[in-house]
Amino acid sequence: PFATNLHAQLTQDSEKLVEQIQQQLEELRLKVAPFADDVHKQLAKNIEELQLKLNPYTEQFRTSVQENAEELRQQLTPIVQKLQAKIQENVGSVQTALTPYALELHQTINDKVEQVKEKLSPYTDELKLKIEQNVEELHKNLALYPQDVQEKLNQQIELMAFQMRKNAEMLRTKISENAEDLRQQLLSSADQIKEKLNGNVADARQNVAPYIEEFNTQMNKKIEEFSQSIAPAGENINKMIVQKAEELKQKLGPYTVGVQDQMQV
Amino acid sequence: PFATNLHAQLTQDSEKLVEQIQQQLEELRLKVAPFADDVHKQLAKNIEELQLKLNPYTEQFRTSVQENAEELRQQLTPIVQKLQAKIQENVGSVQTALTPYALELHQTINDKVEQVKEKLSPYTDELKLKIEQNVEELHKNLALYPQDVQEKLNQQIELMAFQMRKNAEMLRTKISENAEDLRQQLLSSADQIKEKLNGNVADARQNVAPYIEEFNTQMNKKIEEFSQSIAPAGENINKMIVQKAEELKQKLGPYTVGVQDQMQV
Repeated sequence: PFATNLHAQLTQDSEKLVEQIQQQLEELRLKVAPFADDVHKQLAKNIEELQLKLNPYTEQFRTSVQENAEELRQQLTPIVQKLQAKIQENVGSVQTALTPYALELHQTINDKVEQVKEKLSPYTDELKLKIEQNVEELHKNLALYPQDVQEKLNQQIELMAFQMRKNAEMLRTKISENAEDLRQQLLSSADQIKEKLNGNVADARQNVAPYIEEFNTQMNKKIEEFSQSIAPAGENINKMIVQKAEELKQKLGPYTVGVQDQMQV
Repeated sequence: PFATNLHAQLTQDSEKLVEQIQQQLEELRLKVAPFADDVHKQLAKNIEELQLKLNPYTEQFRTSVQENAEELRQQLTPIVQKLQAKIQENVGSVQTALTPYALELHQTINDKVEQVKEKLSPYTDELKLKIEQNVEELHKNLALYPQDVQEKLNQQIELMAFQMRKNAEMLRTKISENAEDLRQQLLSSADQIKEKLNGNVADARQNVAPYIEEFNTQMNKKIEEFSQSIAPAGENINKMIVQKAEELKQKLGPYTVGVQDQMQV
């Protein structure tokens, strides 16, 4: 009977307790339940607003990146063009500036070697004069000799005079030929300076050209890459931000639902 | 008797004839003999005089050749030096002239890429502002909820806000890093133009230098050769002329001696 009483008592007590707990839970449920849905709604609304706020911003950012990239390209292009023009101009001016000096060297070689030839020319003339004087004197000295002796001697003298004149002419030829050789050798050596210089200057210009070309290519490519890389980054980051808000909603979901579930024990 | 007479007659006649011939030869010998020696003397004197006349001339010619060669060298040297100086100057001036343009390109890349970074910076600030506004709104919306619900939600909101701020910061970093990359790539490409240009200009100068050196060497060598070749030529030709006169003496020697010999038949 005690056991029965106890059981009944316990049953009664526990039923009472359950009733009390249920009552308390019900109160809590009533107190919390509206918020669960509310929080969800609030978060959904907040995410939607964030999305709405970020959308035009994403578009704006993309446009701004492209505009800035284009502007950068437009700012750099004329400066590269100017550099290129100045390279052409200056490298060209080296040739122009140096041409008169190379020409002067060429001209001076021509003139001065000619002068050397001219200055040495009187010596040949004088030599010829001395030969003629000598021959004349020989003839004169033989004038008193008998006719037959004179004739024989004069023949020999004329033969000698002919050979002497030929010798004098050889000197003139030698001077002329040697001067001509000298002129040719000096000119060829001088012209090599000019050729080499023009060649190198042209090379300098040609060698730089591909680097300017390369810069233009790189500039366009890199600015494009920058633009392509940055513009979607803005979009992606905005997506990530919205995703974080979404995650918050998901995270808080079980909690609020959990409160409701707890109420339904 | 007739034969004897004839023989005697012939003997007498021939003796008479021999006598006559000898007499005539003697006359001729007497007539010619003095000239043989005279001609020799005359020729010897003439050769001596020719030699005396030619000696100072030989010396003069040698001096004149050397002086003219030296003068030629002195006339060409300053012109080569001027050309060399102008090459240095002009080639150097290319670098000087182009430096500001290369610098401008370098500077513009630096400035303009910096500007792009600055122009895109407000977007990050704005993004952060939007995040803060969103977070604040969330907090505000939860203000009416019970304390225990608020606390739980606020914790989650703060966690989300932290991640959102990190995302916004990522955009700033991305812009900054990409702009830095762009700057470095453009600068390296621009600097290559300058380096290549300076290199080529320096090359041009260096490549021409040996040709100027070569010209100087050739000039000295060839002028020396000219001088060495021409100066003795004058002397040799004078020697040949004297030799011709000597030959004349030798040639006429046997003739005059021959006349004497004939006289001694």
